[in-house]
Amino acid sequence: MSQSSLARLLRLKGELNIDFIESAALRDNPLGDPSNRPIAIYLPASYDPQGSKRYPVLYCLHGYTGDVAAIISARPWETNAVQWIDRLIAERKMPPAILVIVDGFTRLGGSQYMNSIHNGNYADYVIDEVIAHVDGTYRTIPSEGGRGVLGKSSGGFGSLYLCMTRPGVFGAFASHSGDSYFTYAHPPAFPALHRTLEKFDWNIRAFVEHFEEQHKRQMPEYQTIEMLGYAAAYSPRTAKAFDLDLPVDRKTGQIVEEVFARWRAYDPADMCAQKKAELERLRLRYLDCGRRDEYGLDVGARVFTQRVRDLGLKVVHEEFEDDHRNVGYRYAVSMPLLANVLEKE
Amino acid sequence: MSQSSLARLLRLKGELNIDFIESAALRDNPLGDPSNRPIAIYLPASYDPQGSKRYPVLYCLHGYTGDVAAIISARPWETNAVQWIDRLIAERKMPPAILVIVDGFTRLGGSQYMNSIHNGNYADYVIDEVIAHVDGTYRTIPSEGGRGVLGKSSGGFGSLYLCMTRPGVFGAFASHSGDSYFTYAHPPAFPALHRTLEKFDWNIRAFVEHFEEQHKRQMPEYQTIEMLGYAAAYSPRTAKAFDLDLPVDRKTGQIVEEVFARWRAYDPADMCAQKKAELERLRLRYLDCGRRDEYGLDVGARVFTQRVRDLGLKVVHEEFEDDHRNVGYRYAVSMPLLANVLEKE
Amino acid sequence: MSQSSLARLLRLKGELNIDFIESAALRDNPLGDPSNRPIAIYLPASYDPQGSKRYPVLYCLHGYTGDVAAIISARPWETNAVQWIDRLIAERKMPPAILVIVDGFTRLGGSQYMNSIHNGNYADYVIDEVIAHVDGTYRTIPSEGGRGVLGKSSGGFGSLYLCMTRPGVFGAFASHSGDSYFTYAHPPAFPALHRTLEKFDWNIRAFVEHFEEQHKRQMPEYQTIEMLGYAAAYSPRTAKAFDLDLPVDRKTGQIVEEVFARWRAYDPADMCAQKKAELERLRLRYLDCGRRDEYGLDVGARVFTQRVRDLGLKVVHEEFEDDHRNVGYRYAVSMPLLANVLEKE
Amino acid sequence: MSQSSLARLLRLKGELNIDFIESAALRDNPLGDPSNRPIAIYLPASYDPQGSKRYPVLYCLHGYTGDVAAIISARPWETNAVQWIDRLIAERKMPPAILVIVDGFTRLGGSQYMNSIHNGNYADYVIDEVIAHVDGTYRTIPSEGGRGVLGKSSGGFGSLYLCMTRPGVFGAFASHSGDSYFTYAHPPAFPALHRTLEKFDWNIRAFVEHFEEQHKRQMPEYQTIEMLGYAAAYSPRTAKAFDLDLPVDRKTGQIVEEVFARWRAYDPADMCAQKKAELERLRLRYLDCGRRDEYGLDVGARVFTQRVRDLGLKVVHEEFEDDHRNVGYRYAVSMPLLANVLEKE
Repeated sequence: MSQSSLARLLRLKGELNIDFIESAALRDNPLGDPSNRPIAIYLPASYDPQGSKRYPVLYCLHGYTGDVAAIISARPWETNAVQWIDRLIAERKMPPAILVIVDGFTRLGGSQYMNSIHNGNYADYVIDEVIAHVDGTYRTIPSEGGRGVLGKSSGGFGSLYLCMTRPGVFGAFASHSGDSYFTYAHPPAFPALHRTLEKFDWNIRAFVEHFEEQHKRQMPEYQTIEMLGYAAAYSPRTAKAFDLDLPVDRKTGQIVEEVFARWRAYDPADMCAQKKAELERLRLRYLDCGRRDEYGLDVGARVFTQRVRDLGLKVVHEEFEDDHRNVGYRYAVSMPLLANVLEKE
Repeated sequence: MSQSSLARLLRLKGELNIDFIESAALRDNPLGDPSNRPIAIYLPASYDPQGSKRYPVLYCLHGYTGDVAAIISARPWETNAVQWIDRLIAERKMPPAILVIVDGFTRLGGSQYMNSIHNGNYADYVIDEVIAHVDGTYRTIPSEGGRGVLGKSSGGFGSLYLCMTRPGVFGAFASHSGDSYFTYAHPPAFPALHRTLEKFDWNIRAFVEHFEEQHKRQMPEYQTIEMLGYAAAYSPRTAKAFDLDLPVDRKTGQIVEEVFARWRAYDPADMCAQKKAELERLRLRYLDCGRRDEYGLDVGARVFTQRVRDLGLKVVHEEFEDDHRNVGYRYAVSMPLLANVLEKE
Repeated sequence: MSQSSLARLLRLKGELNIDFIESAALRDNPLGDPSNRPIAIYLPASYDPQGSKRYPVLYCLHGYTGDVAAIISARPWETNAVQWIDRLIAERKMPPAILVIVDGFTRLGGSQYMNSIHNGNYADYVIDEVIAHVDGTYRTIPSEGGRGVLGKSSGGFGSLYLCMTRPGVFGAFASHSGDSYFTYAHPPAFPALHRTLEKFDWNIRAFVEHFEEQHKRQMPEYQTIEMLGYAAAYSPRTAKAFDLDLPVDRKTGQIVEEVFARWRAYDPADMCAQKKAELERLRLRYLDCGRRDEYGLDVGARVFTQRVRDLGLKVVHEEFEDDHRNVGYRYAVSMPLLANVLEKE
Repeated sequence: MSQSSLARLLRLKGELNIDFIESAALRDNPLGDPSNRPIAIYLPASYDPQGSKRYPVLYCLHGYTGDVAAIISARPWETNAVQWIDRLIAERKMPPAILVIVDGFTRLGGSQYMNSIHNGNYADYVIDEVIAHVDGTYRTIPSEGGRGVLGKSSGGFGSLYLCMTRPGVFGAFASHSGDSYFTYAHPPAFPALHRTLEKFDWNIRAFVEHFEEQHKRQMPEYQTIEMLGYAAAYSPRTAKAFDLDLPVDRKTGQIVEEVFARWRAYDPADMCAQKKAELERLRLRYLDCGRRDEYGLDVGARVFTQRVRDLGLKVVHEEFEDDHRNVGYRYAVSMPLLANVLEKE
């Protein structure tokens, strides 16, 4: 069977499909994001749709401001997630596996892969719909032991969050520079949130439309939309678009502790202590982070790791000398580890 | 006819094909780059392969470090060249046209779309092979009046260069922040070239392999590979890989004037004065550049413009307040201008 | 009387003296900083040591990493605090006043003008010794109503802190971008503190000696010494050099809440609510901050302002479009306000 | 004799005087800069004005945007030129010497220590007036063999320039990151010069007044005033303030070769080949530069060095891993070398 032009363009040995699913979980979401969503499915070179062999599946969750198109984007001298797995399999550094890129983008930059009255039910969509589609369409090992989940930044968060709240779905996770220990990660952006929205007279919609219309944006604008994205996931007020509880006081800009406490209720560094059963059933718990991470997520990974080890569970924890950007080369560590613990035929 | 999944992923109304051609012009090129090359072809929504209507074609040349995959990459809140033309046509800001993305990447980052004993004959490949493939495969207006060429940075250079050296092929050009007036554009990177290669004992191959193997590179390394890329186009020594004449003296780092003169022989700001006939036959000569361009290419566009106007020819010249990065929004100006002057059916 | 060469060098119309005092409060301080300290005293042009006229005094507290020599440093096209008051008086934008620059530097970059078992008693030194020297040496109005205190950054903090803890000394304060609301100001540097000291195996002395020996330092090193400076002021462990309680957990890097609570006990944004009597007796409470302050001190100034207004007291609060650096031009606002409310003869 | 307060403030073992001279060479200069100029004179601890011992003198020329006040400015954790010589003498790394800081500042940021119809005769002022004052006031060795000259950036240029054009005055020079090989150093700033002045409709005075009035300036504004400063030294048009020939074409921004040739006539890298006699009589020719110098002055130092060596003369040439900023620690190399070759009593 001849390769798709997309797979050739990316110089893959395997195949890359882009499927689309119509999500019931996202239907009529308040924010107005499409319920028809792309999924990218990488199939290893040995994959034979007519054959009998089944493959484990790695679900890859993109980070905040990412989507399927961005993840499969390729640049000279760079290697994206799909190119990594293709290369690792070709070099026999890992057994063949399917890689699925899930789309969790919203108009505010990302859903955190959570159910939200404001965004729609992205956790349901991933767990109930994406997986059903993949298992229904491809020759997968359609069980907990045949599925791993991984991602970077907010994708790492999603991996941790879904494993802790939807036990029995994934058998292992890898979190690269994943959001954890919100105490360091988010408050540094709160002053930017406050300053920017004050300029827009606290009209979030007006800010978002302004943001979308610009050719270029300044750092405080990116920080602002990011904090709005997290508020939409962690502290929505109602199911009305842009109706969010914000973690900053309008008058002074100081933290509104009640709201930030709602954010922290989803902080993996905190959640994990209550999730022993969910974490214990996993075959691999992997986290890494660059030791210069601009959001202090190296500390977040350390806190998560220690607390899970305090539960008596093993964690594979690595650090490296780098910052938060462009750490896709860490897939060369995580993907083989994941593939090796998952069931194979 | 149903859209390809790639077109859907990019949310296009039109279609996006990725074709591959086996180039005779690039066969066995010394640098070892593939002779099998992708071409991206955007077809407007109204395009009917069974119909009789033919369309003008805009040939889009990517910049240095770009390739077809990079150009069609999409990111949230950004609009790539293909998405721009699709949107402009949908909003009736320009008549339907085909957009073709040409691949001119080399191991040294880019060919400048020139024939080179060192890189291969990229000008021949574009002019003789890409255009033949497009005209032979799609319902184009297969004549000078039906073709425009545009690009940014080195892609702008390529547009100027091909129009001036291959008259009769394109009927119009648009150069966005195109390389011009090398006196400003390139010497600021020469010290980095000198310092870096000195560390590698002037072993260019060793540097390039080091460059390719790294996860991340520093600015001087990017400047070095860029200067090597230009040397491969402007001042190759022989048809042996990495055998280049460099514009810097090994001992001191000062400019080697004889070599830099070979570079400047291709400077559009200089060439244009001798290319009246070639430029005169064009229906549109369009240049723009941001007035904060880090390479001084705004001056380059002004010099080119003045010299061509001194020949008695009209030039559409625009400036805007921006730097060299992410100026794709300028396609909203250039694409309609090009499409409007080209022949239509 | 002829001007000093220093005053001429700074192109002052007034005079600038550098006095030295031997401080009992700083004698044998554990950190080993000198107890002999410089004081810079600016005298307006009209000041006559033989005359009978007395002047109000503005005490200027430098910021973290500053000292007397740094504050009186002059650069072309810049105006330092001494040059500002000289110019404002010459332009009749404020009545004549004496300006005193107090030295609060320590080996860890600054004392915060507090008493500390680790650093020495800098508050006592300022209040008991510097003021006594100035009142004893110059023709001042030697009373609360004749003294104002101002400063930027940690100097703003010192102004707030001394007014709230040593009532009856100063009659007014101006805090420019002063440390307040530590929740935003300090935790963003905690990961750097953790990463750096981990490299030094938590040997603070070894880090400090390394820091001092380098020709140039990186940002994380500056952040580290800064956090050590604050720990020496807010959370010293004993009166032994470098024996500090740090606000980060050695193993994970997370915040040690008990320690950070000791820091926050000195947060002006929190302290002020308990200091109504101390604040009420002031003639002027002035704060300003740039609305792009990198440490979120604009929020700190807002929180302080609101809480003091909630006590029923007036606060002059201004914001401006700038960041934390080089905001000396704000003295053009604060110095006249201070001089106008202080007693004059 | 007790130390001055300034010397104590800088923690010197020696003494620091600030003298002022009324310069005939600068009287009524067109730019309106003061003819009364400060000179800072550092005297080593062993210097005895009543004694008979005489000392060699190092003349230190500040860089562009510097002046005497800036050079003697002190900051915690930093060591200025005066503090360096004091420390080197105290640590017996060099024999005692006098250090003189010469003031060459102009309203356009610096005179390059040259005579200019536009700025005034700064070379005459240094050679005829400053040296006369120093030799007449202090116990110097008042001869070529007792004088060295050194400086950084434009101060390095000045050292080279004065040694090559005023033979017999200095017996040695040290140029740190000195301006040389203008081909790399200056054209990168020409686009900024063009863009900025175009906004001011080529009214240089209006730009300069705007520059002076701002609290903060952007990089292109600094580049612009710097290029104006060089034009005032290298290519003045008349003796009227701001009447300069600029090296950029008003219409396009391209280099005006006739003007830039006038600049290059003063390029040490070019001048040196004609100055064998002047260079030969020197006891030490020392240059160094950081190998990441933003202006490519490392290449400039290499070119100068090679060309002087080609004359058959020795040059001490060093490189180090750093950029153009804050390289004062190189005085620890240059000052002992200079002091050791100069005459001593």
